[in-house]
Order: sequence, then C-alpha cells, then structure tokens
Amino acid sequence: MYKLVLIRHGESTWNLENRFTGWTDVELTPTGVEQAKEAGRLLKAGGYEFDLAYTSVLKRAIWTLWHTLDQMDRTWLPVAHSWRLNERHYGSLQGLNKADMAKQYGDEQVLIWRRSYDTPPPSLEADDPRGQRADVRYAKLNPEDIPLTECLKDTVARVLPFWNDAIAPAIRSGKRVLIAAHGNSIRALVKYLDNIADADIVGVNIPNGVPLVYELDADLKPIRSYYLGDAEAVAKAAAAVANQGKA
Amino acid sequence: MYKLVLIRHGESTWNLENRFTGWTDVELTPTGVEQAKEAGRLLKAGGYEFDLAYTSVLKRAIWTLWHTLDQMDRTWLPVAHSWRLNERHYGSLQGLNKADMAKQYGDEQVLIWRRSYDTPPPSLEADDPRGQRADVRYAKLNPEDIPLTECLKDTVARVLPFWNDAIAPAIRSGKRVLIAAHGNSIRALVKYLDNIADADIVGVNIPNGVPLVYELDADLKPIRSYYLGDAEAVAKAAAAVANQGKA
Repeated sequence: MYKLVLIRHGESTWNLENRFTGWTDVELTPTGVEQAKEAGRLLKAGGYEFDLAYTSVLKRAIWTLWHTLDQMDRTWLPVAHSWRLNERHYGSLQGLNKADMAKQYGDEQVLIWRRSYDTPPPSLEADDPRGQRADVRYAKLNPEDIPLTECLKDTVARVLPFWNDAIAPAIRSGKRVLIAAHGNSIRALVKYLDNIADADIVGVNIPNGVPLVYELDADLKPIRSYYLGDAEAVAKAAAAVANQGKA
Repeated sequence: MYKLVLIRHGESTWNLENRFTGWTDVELTPTGVEQAKEAGRLLKAGGYEFDLAYTSVLKRAIWTLWHTLDQMDRTWLPVAHSWRLNERHYGSLQGLNKADMAKQYGDEQVLIWRRSYDTPPPSLEADDPRGQRADVRYAKLNPEDIPLTECLKDTVARVLPFWNDAIAPAIRSGKRVLIAAHGNSIRALVKYLDNIADADIVGVNIPNGVPLVYELDADLKPIRSYYLGDAEAVAKAAAAVANQGKA
C-alpha cells in the first residue's frame, strides 16, 4: 500500500570520536557525507520517489537529507523540520566519551544509559551551556518541553505526536515520505511501527546512512521492512553501533 | 520597518563556461560554493536573522541557500521552493555559449536576447529535450505554464504572483525573509520594488553570491538597498555579468 523510508544520519564527528551527542549540533564527517550520498544513490537506483521529506533541526540529519536528495536529483522537494525528530537527549553525558564512561562506570552502566527503555542518564542543569534552552531554534517551545535528559521512553513520547499529527496523515493522503533522523528517534518509530516490547528494543541498532524501507498496509501496519544495500555491510554497521559503549 | 535579503546563486558550471543556462539545472562550481559560504558569513557577521527562506526549484539556487544557511548555523530554517523564482527561461539559447553567439549574431543581438525587456529569445519546441515539460518537478503545473522561452517581462509576470501571494504577506506578518534565486528572477523583483522603467532595467546586473539587502517601509516600499561586503568587488562582479555577452 504505502512505502516509508527512514535514514539515520551519516557518521558525525562525535560518532567518530565515540562521544554521547544527543542534542549537540555536530557536523557530518567526510565518511558521513559519503554514506548520505550512497543512500541517495541506492534510493535512485531502486526507483524510489518521494513527495515530502521530514528531518530534525540538527544539521547532521539535515545535511544527510540534503546529500541524499541531491544524489536523487530531488533537492527541490519540500522538507519539514521538527525538533520532535531530534536525537534522544543524553543529559549530562552529552560530550563525554562512551568508552571512557564504560571504563569509569562499567559496561553495564553505560548500556543502561544507552539502551534502558525507562532510565534516563543524569540530567543537565537548566542553565548548563551544553543544554539547549538558550538556542534560538527552540525559542518557540515551552522551556519545560526542551529536555534536560531523556530515556527512550521520553523520546517515544515526543516523537509519536509528530508521527500522529503530521507524518501518518501525510502518508495516508498518498504522499511518499522520506525521514532523515537519528538513531533513537528512528528506534522510537521502529518500536511503535513494529510494536516491539520495552524489553526488546534494547537489541535494535540502526546503522548510519542506510535507507530502511517500510512497506505499510492501509492502516499503516508494517507488511515488511528491509535495509537497502549490501546485507552483510548493514549487519556489520549495526553491530558496530551496538558495541560503541564497551570499555 | 522590514529587511529583505536577496542572493543570486554562486557561480555555476555554465556561468563559468559562459553558456545560457535558464531552466537547465546545473551545479555550482567550487567558486560558487565559496561565494555562497561567504554570503552566509557576511550575513552572520552582520547579525542578520531570518524566519523563512524562499528559493527556486533549481539546484544552483538551492545549494547556495543551503551553504548560506549552514554558515549562519540556520540549516533548520523552513524553506519554501517555487518554480516562479526560477531563472528566466532562455529558450533555444539554453546550452549555447554567449560569446560564440555574439561572434555569430553580433554583440547587439546577444544584448537584445540577454537584456531586452520584451523580446524573448527563439523558442524551444515543446518536445525539445532541453525543455522541461517532461521534468517531474513541474508535473503539477499546466503544461502551458512551463515556458519554452521568456523575455524579462514574462519572468516579471510569473515572479510577481509569488511575491504578492506568498512573500509579501510573509514579510507583512513579521517574518524575516531570505530569498536565494537567479539573476533574472532577482532583476524582476528589483524592477518591481524600485519601480525601474522597462528601458532602464537593461543596465541592472546582479553579481553572484552577494547578499542584497532591502530596507522596506510598512507598505513594502524600499527605503534603501545595498550589497553586503566589499563595494569595489561587488561593482566588479556586476560589471563582469554585464560583459558576458560580448564577442
């Protein structure tokens, strides 16, 4: 019935440095740019067409979308931005190295911070310069809606209203939708679409820059889903994401 | 009262090759990318802020906007695309070298094709592969609205409805607007805003990649306008545009 494509941004500078990023607005690396272009080439080769793209307000996702669209010769497509598609907010871990934290607090604690469904990492103070409450792109939000930390459950809770209010109606109206977002905002959508239990979402890792295709029925329930491109490379990339938090 | 900023795209591959471009969708050159980034740096240094950007459906303008916004750390701003901001359609001259045409037909004839207000260049046939009637980005237009050639008068006639229906209301509602467009779609806006006579617009040349600021009163009449950046360099760039059509 419908096809929906999700892409996690290409490798960012802080992915490369293995740092918790969250809402920090870091750049793509040259590898990340190449991953984004390759996503566009795969989509073009597969004959994919879109009417509308969604992305976050963070430039690693936005540039990923731009490079993807450029390779498809579709730079002119309408793009809607929402903070609700942002990465999960990593609280006071933002900027810290994942392996350093694993050495200091143990692999298990870091896995809890990274993947626990309902335990958020330690919160930022409201006036911490690593936070976003003074950032002009969030100026129209209620300050209390700008997180100081989030667990995945919190991310799901702020992604789903955007799915329900904007994305799902667009798909139902016949628009072919592409979403360029982040590891955890995509995990939030995958959890919802595939109805994955709270305990099982810990094992789901989204590789950088690989188009994830969902075929949806008339009720927007998944018929099947698959990554484009070389299956072995995709599996390796997802495993690498899973291993980032080990000492 | 209001500030409006217009930017002509940075140097394109066909600017560099001195070819008539029109609606042909060519890339920026590395120089064009640098010009776009410099535009962004100038706007950022000048403290400019925008709520909304408009651009055409041609990638040299879109990429110019993207690089400009990136330098301003404003990749997340909403962007609206319209074919009405496209370059003037150059008819059957599209792809041909301006200086070659001047050698063949004389400087005067090329100046007429380039700058006559109401004489269009020779028309394309409707099925010419250099035309746009099979291009998916124009699929929702009436085929007869997709030009086969345009004089500046024609360009003014299709740019102004977009000014009146979209851009002017946005400015009046308080939105700070940035427009990344093309030599002739910007000349169309400049002619309208500054109320330049048909006979005088021939002398107006817009340099690539330089922010043109309009300060507008409550009725959107210009109080003053000026380019950002080094005045001598801007004058030289505009003179170079004027001289492109000479043998």
